[in-house]
Amino acid sequence: MTKVTIYVTLRESVVDPQGIATTEALQKIGYEEVKSVRVGKLIELQLDGSEETIEARVNEMCKDLLINKVIEDYRFEIGEVASK
Amino acid sequence: MTKVTIYVTLRESVVDPQGIATTEALQKIGYEEVKSVRVGKLIELQLDGSEETIEARVNEMCKDLLINKVIEDYRFEIGEVASK
Repeated sequence: MTKVTIYVTLRESVVDPQGIATTEALQKIGYEEVKSVRVGKLIELQLDGSEETIEARVNEMCKDLLINKVIEDYRFEIGEVASK
Repeated sequence: MTKVTIYVTLRESVVDPQGIATTEALQKIGYEEVKSVRVGKLIELQLDGSEETIEARVNEMCKDLLINKVIEDYRFEIGEVASK
């Protein structure tokens, strides 16, 4: 079993209302040092498959379903799952 | 300016409906190798402050606002922002 962690971020040019609201909320409760917040997604997959194919398959999954290419960027890391 | 990346994940004991739906959707469109998906958050902060204080301040922000301790775990990384 392999664990893949996908980091999904909004493209820089895209406005992030959740991030803006979070920035303002933090500043309001005393964290004036916070200049910007952007909120993305962290997707953790557990899947079977050989090491050689996983990278290509995960890229396909991202394009087919997980990522909105118009507004999001992504990168991912492939790691082993400790067997229990 | 310092960039802090916070990785927020649901605790293992917490059911993740979004992750279950994503697993089923991926399997349905041909990614049968996917066994589980869990969806968390990726929060990117840009903030001022000295290196020594940032770790403590970010921990406070997480406890005060960013994290729901009942259902979420978090970890974070501190990095420099390239000046533009």
